[in-house]
Amino acid sequence: MATDFQGIATQFVTHYYSTFDTDRKNLAGLYRENSMLTFEGTQQLGAASIAEKLVSLPFRTVKHEFAEPHAQPTPNGGIIILVTGQLKVDEETQPLGYTQAFQLCQDPAGQWFVYNDIFKLSIF
Amino acid sequence: MATDFQGIATQFVTHYYSTFDTDRKNLAGLYRENSMLTFEGTQQLGAASIAEKLVSLPFRTVKHEFAEPHAQPTPNGGIIILVTGQLKVDEETQPLGYTQAFQLCQDPAGQWFVYNDIFKLSIF
Repeated sequence: MATDFQGIATQFVTHYYSTFDTDRKNLAGLYRENSMLTFEGTQQLGAASIAEKLVSLPFRTVKHEFAEPHAQPTPNGGIIILVTGQLKVDEETQPLGYTQAFQLCQDPAGQWFVYNDIFKLSIF
Repeated sequence: MATDFQGIATQFVTHYYSTFDTDRKNLAGLYRENSMLTFEGTQQLGAASIAEKLVSLPFRTVKHEFAEPHAQPTPNGGIIILVTGQLKVDEETQPLGYTQAFQLCQDPAGQWFVYNDIFKLSIF
């Protein structure tokens, strides 16, 4: 049974940023107790802590635009995804480049969730 | 036994780009038969095919500079790494931004190798 990892990645990323841009507290449902987020070097563990971090980010509105994600299957049946894009916050006219790596895994019910999440602004 | 995943990530990335910039055919030793590379959307499977792709890139000299990699442990005892940086090829004065995600795994002898490798230039 071959998993359509590229299709799942595209669908996931579209859903993720659409949720992020509309009501980011709902991102909690995409993480689990053992999920990890590294956001600009700051680390969070677990869905509640991750959602709290994302909700606390100091902007009111945000809009992500992203290029087609690139995906590969991982040894444990998961999917690794690399995304690059730009985001605009509040009334800022200058978009910020960003890059984000995810590993998705399936829970016992077969639902995909984010196990690994590393986010960086593209400032060298 | 806690793995020092951040230390291993930093050590790996330093070794990887140093090898890339000196003699990139030697990168073959960092991959295995089941390793995957997605390079600007083009996919390669296996150490030989990956090394061939990297050696065939159309530049003579290259120099990578990179920010501190961000790493997390993965479910199968591996390490996921996100790196952003800049590279300069040949006599080009303008560096190119890039982003790269790795997943490292351990082989039966305990040696770390690249299972997943996704490389993108930071052009949105």
